[in-house]
Amino acid sequence: MGNTFGHLFRITTFGESHGGGVGVVIDGCPPRLEISAEEIQVELDRRRPGQSKITTPRKEADTCEIISGVFEGKTLGTPIAIMVRNKDTRSQDYDEMQQTYRPSHADATYDAKYGIRNWQGGGRSSARETIGRVAAGAIAKKILKLVADVEIIGYVKRIQDLEGVVDPNTVTLEQVESNIARCPDAECAERMVERIEQIGRSGDSLGGVVECVARNMPKGLGEPVFDKLEADLAKGVMSLPASKGFEIGSGFAGTLLTGSEHNDEFYLDETGAVRTVTNRSGGIQGGISNGEAIVLRVAFKPTATIRKEQRTVTSAGSETILAAKGRHDPCVLPRAVPMVEAMVALVLCDHLLRHQGQCRTLMP
Amino acid sequence: MGNTFGHLFRITTFGESHGGGVGVVIDGCPPRLEISAEEIQVELDRRRPGQSKITTPRKEADTCEIISGVFEGKTLGTPIAIMVRNKDTRSQDYDEMQQTYRPSHADATYDAKYGIRNWQGGGRSSARETIGRVAAGAIAKKILKLVADVEIIGYVKRIQDLEGVVDPNTVTLEQVESNIARCPDAECAERMVERIEQIGRSGDSLGGVVECVARNMPKGLGEPVFDKLEADLAKGVMSLPASKGFEIGSGFAGTLLTGSEHNDEFYLDETGAVRTVTNRSGGIQGGISNGEAIVLRVAFKPTATIRKEQRTVTSAGSETILAAKGRHDPCVLPRAVPMVEAMVALVLCDHLLRHQGQCRTLMP
Amino acid sequence: MGNTFGHLFRITTFGESHGGGVGVVIDGCPPRLEISAEEIQVELDRRRPGQSKITTPRKEADTCEIISGVFEGKTLGTPIAIMVRNKDTRSQDYDEMQQTYRPSHADATYDAKYGIRNWQGGGRSSARETIGRVAAGAIAKKILKLVADVEIIGYVKRIQDLEGVVDPNTVTLEQVESNIARCPDAECAERMVERIEQIGRSGDSLGGVVECVARNMPKGLGEPVFDKLEADLAKGVMSLPASKGFEIGSGFAGTLLTGSEHNDEFYLDETGAVRTVTNRSGGIQGGISNGEAIVLRVAFKPTATIRKEQRTVTSAGSETILAAKGRHDPCVLPRAVPMVEAMVALVLCDHLLRHQGQCRTLMP
Amino acid sequence: MGNTFGHLFRITTFGESHGGGVGVVIDGCPPRLEISAEEIQVELDRRRPGQSKITTPRKEADTCEIISGVFEGKTLGTPIAIMVRNKDTRSQDYDEMQQTYRPSHADATYDAKYGIRNWQGGGRSSARETIGRVAAGAIAKKILKLVADVEIIGYVKRIQDLEGVVDPNTVTLEQVESNIARCPDAECAERMVERIEQIGRSGDSLGGVVECVARNMPKGLGEPVFDKLEADLAKGVMSLPASKGFEIGSGFAGTLLTGSEHNDEFYLDETGAVRTVTNRSGGIQGGISNGEAIVLRVAFKPTATIRKEQRTVTSAGSETILAAKGRHDPCVLPRAVPMVEAMVALVLCDHLLRHQGQCRTLMP
Repeated sequence: MGNTFGHLFRITTFGESHGGGVGVVIDGCPPRLEISAEEIQVELDRRRPGQSKITTPRKEADTCEIISGVFEGKTLGTPIAIMVRNKDTRSQDYDEMQQTYRPSHADATYDAKYGIRNWQGGGRSSARETIGRVAAGAIAKKILKLVADVEIIGYVKRIQDLEGVVDPNTVTLEQVESNIARCPDAECAERMVERIEQIGRSGDSLGGVVECVARNMPKGLGEPVFDKLEADLAKGVMSLPASKGFEIGSGFAGTLLTGSEHNDEFYLDETGAVRTVTNRSGGIQGGISNGEAIVLRVAFKPTATIRKEQRTVTSAGSETILAAKGRHDPCVLPRAVPMVEAMVALVLCDHLLRHQGQCRTLMP
Repeated sequence: MGNTFGHLFRITTFGESHGGGVGVVIDGCPPRLEISAEEIQVELDRRRPGQSKITTPRKEADTCEIISGVFEGKTLGTPIAIMVRNKDTRSQDYDEMQQTYRPSHADATYDAKYGIRNWQGGGRSSARETIGRVAAGAIAKKILKLVADVEIIGYVKRIQDLEGVVDPNTVTLEQVESNIARCPDAECAERMVERIEQIGRSGDSLGGVVECVARNMPKGLGEPVFDKLEADLAKGVMSLPASKGFEIGSGFAGTLLTGSEHNDEFYLDETGAVRTVTNRSGGIQGGISNGEAIVLRVAFKPTATIRKEQRTVTSAGSETILAAKGRHDPCVLPRAVPMVEAMVALVLCDHLLRHQGQCRTLMP
Repeated sequence: MGNTFGHLFRITTFGESHGGGVGVVIDGCPPRLEISAEEIQVELDRRRPGQSKITTPRKEADTCEIISGVFEGKTLGTPIAIMVRNKDTRSQDYDEMQQTYRPSHADATYDAKYGIRNWQGGGRSSARETIGRVAAGAIAKKILKLVADVEIIGYVKRIQDLEGVVDPNTVTLEQVESNIARCPDAECAERMVERIEQIGRSGDSLGGVVECVARNMPKGLGEPVFDKLEADLAKGVMSLPASKGFEIGSGFAGTLLTGSEHNDEFYLDETGAVRTVTNRSGGIQGGISNGEAIVLRVAFKPTATIRKEQRTVTSAGSETILAAKGRHDPCVLPRAVPMVEAMVALVLCDHLLRHQGQCRTLMP
Repeated sequence: MGNTFGHLFRITTFGESHGGGVGVVIDGCPPRLEISAEEIQVELDRRRPGQSKITTPRKEADTCEIISGVFEGKTLGTPIAIMVRNKDTRSQDYDEMQQTYRPSHADATYDAKYGIRNWQGGGRSSARETIGRVAAGAIAKKILKLVADVEIIGYVKRIQDLEGVVDPNTVTLEQVESNIARCPDAECAERMVERIEQIGRSGDSLGGVVECVARNMPKGLGEPVFDKLEADLAKGVMSLPASKGFEIGSGFAGTLLTGSEHNDEFYLDETGAVRTVTNRSGGIQGGISNGEAIVLRVAFKPTATIRKEQRTVTSAGSETILAAKGRHDPCVLPRAVPMVEAMVALVLCDHLLRHQGQCRTLMP
């Protein structure tokens, strides 16, 4: 249970890292939307391994197939199933994992919960599962752009203590994609790449923070009191592998301010629209979008797979030492950017549909 | 929409700050649990206004009534409805609010979304709505304690920059309740109280961080991939009024470490159980509880209601100046503690039921 | 669990026949709808006991109170809680029920499931629970009428073998309410009343069939493949106490026809709209409304409570004889009419919102 | 929306009759269950076309592939995706359907709802969609058998006016599968086959009634008040293509009896268990299983596709005459049997998990 996300734009992902494949079923996509496998592939390529020298050298094409829900290039309003086959080249690298729990991985908890585990890689807990999310996110992004001109841009804000200077109101996709660190601060990006290469060579790993902005937001999205927009965004990104924290707007730093310093004063812009002078609320007040840019941050821990020796235990109940073999991302942050964007897009698209259904159109 | 939370232990809250009352319907509470209005009242008293000199001086008894679902002191397995009547003393303090949007409140967004708003106080966005959550949380806590001996303790970790030193593994409810700041570090608590009183006199407000721990956790709770335990916890607490950030385990600070510093190595304890040496994972790996203490933190912004003058606009579309009148909490943190505990309890209780249903009991 | 119904217009009912009261929380009602307790009371009065000589002589006012979600006569878009207090006059009539299972009642199954039961009357399985449904249905009806001019009319089609002749396309509420049998065929209604009075005097009971029509239906409601309109209607009415069967359109009788006799041929009406010559589909094709009148029938078994002696057993595990005391409906059909209408209205209103959200408004 | 069914054992189906394929994702299947594609194929073969002279002569292998959720022959507790590729041989037979609405099919309503339609066959409304349901039902059946020894047997009870004599308490799968009509009354089955062949030759079609029994039922399944067992069963089978009616136990015929004739008296069997003398309740009282056999019936209309000429209209808005070409089932009943069994199994399995989760295991 727990493999479905969303209320009206609802996705169900499936698949383990090894076995037949991974994918997603999208239920609730509006009909008559033009969509192609090629468009989806663009986003999948941003998350796939082997895309640069700072990601795992493992090469996988991750080519997607649309199984259903699209006819003559347009969505039917029926479930869209998208699948990516696994290459399924079972590596000897994983043999040790059959018995040995990797520290800070999900091996031990999956065994504790299910009493069984696909030990050929991460199984269901592998980041490979996010392929389905990113594919669905590509469609959600397109709907948001078409219907409401909403623009979602994620980027690496910080790697360890290297923090980029980025203005969420003006950052562009081109800036993000201009370097392999996916940090729009080009100078900082260079240092990030160096730091990641260095840690990779040492067999260790790094974490950091992804920031994501949604601009041109319509007002009114979010369903208090439990499905507040920030609550659903938090759930969405905290369901990504390796995430450890979430902030909206001023976040934890905002707790250092007083109310008079923190409050977003209102003004009327030239069109008479209600706007806020500052945006410490991060585009959401009382769980509902206020039209300002939504700005959020997600903390990702350093990759758990490292080549250094670590104390661990086996499923048979003895203590041992493990040093991971094979090829791994020394830092997931650059590849996490499209994942965060996807989750943000999925939440916003779902809330766009929910708001449509309930409020805007019915009563005069 | 969005007023229901949980999958098997499911609550629906209702009510505005003014009008007939506020309350909750709990669906899915196991039958034959002994429960009384008095037990629930204990938790409600921890969140009610007027309980100390650093909360709003407004006095409200917030006496709860169990309407249904309990018979001869025991739950029936049917929906438990609990209600607290509003005193409904409409104050002149709120008259200005009919037209004027309070900065960083939900007045403007509710108007944008619904085209109507109960302007007599916060309406549905009032923290008064959390009465239903805290009442339901009291029952969830009791189930967790009875069935699995789980203990949930929240406390104020930080007010502005005043941070208490607290060990989540040993902190007790008595320590938390020993002072009105609800910070178990007694010395720090004193400084917190001073700081809050001072800011209150100045008409301004403060924010901070609540930390919450769940101890004696059973292994196996959490439903990957979307209903991971940390994802549902994040959603739960981020749906509380004024929350701006969420962390599990090492959180944002963990991103400064390398993988070898961050990973939680495994060992076997004297009973042969798999344990971790450190707990940077915060008790959850791969979205599933690993038996270590769950430790999370929630950032609460400074109270939006302040007596200082602020720039704002009216619903009629003109700019104006607002200074709140009346009595308000200069800092919500002490009263937020039972709210955070309630949300944590609700999530854990729901996942306890979900895990029971699917895994443990069925297959041999 | 299982006390919530609907996806976007979602109700949660609570309450047992004895105890504090019964009620409903409606989540997802569009904002700015004018609604009053008086309007809701009109529908409640149609279902309450004691309304005529053929219903139970028990008198209960069933006066409803709107607790939340309505402000200055209009809905806020927040949860609407409606409550009816129980008179809670515990009758000696029920003492025997503490031990003795009433045949074809839910006493034994509630004990088997929950291990506890409110034996003071039907508890949660009492038809009193439908008060919440009828109250919510009154609001759903109003929305359907306002937004889409949909008209829902239920009536008693048959009592035992007495079947009225009624044209679903022209029947009016006035005709239904013109007699206490709620059968628009006045002559048949007279015989029904006689039959019910007679069976009541003999201590026995009767069942029958309620038919319900929804006219002026918009096209396009229904969400294949599981939430087809007829599937949700079936679930809605089959969740009513005492219901044993459901038919849409031609129903079971339609299985006696050949395809060429059964198919609804299409034609274009004077406005160019696609219509069907016949309506054996009952207004739904492929799970989606086609604009013709929705016509459905619900079978209600004879009232289980009878004054005749019956073999039964006690919860302590011995066999015994039971003859119900007190006052009961010899036939629930007339009072079931507003219940069926309510469930139909709730389903249609939910699907109206779902269709709005997804299809009509988004894509050009 | 609406392509997901179930709460804890939850399936999502996808796919149109033409395009990449059809399938299902099962979320919530307990881990460590042995399952193979071959076992699932057995059920799929019972529903596939071309299996006998009274089904459509179209031959399709409908070979299923398990994509995920199973490892070394056992379920992982993760989503099980099962897919059947479409042969996708687009037939000229369907060209006319691009413009012309087939009477009593879903062509017109899909166009009305979605503004687009896969006109190459039935698209999403094709009975081909039920492949996913039957595949998931095979797993649900196995769980029910293993965990609770529940046995589900469906059969053709009636074709037009030819009604078999079948005892639901003793009927066996072998009897059902002993003839191509799937009617365990062998003599009646012969006449059914003749009647179907005859109507097929004439270009017309027939409907009828499928009866289904679940034996060895555990007590306590069902979640009042909305998710009563009969309500979810009704929804499940009424979501099948061509279904027009549902009955549980005595059904519509029961309305002709008086209460004293209809009530199921209780007795204690030799083991001291509470049983009912008769079973007019159909194994469910108050929405909860009572341990007696669940007996239900589903009405299926005559196949809408016939070779006789019918009046209809085109999507372009003109009236025309249509006579279906190609090969069709003159009567869907024999192939509907595994579909009904699948839906019954899915509902019971879901409720088994729900009941486990909440009641039996938690409180002492």
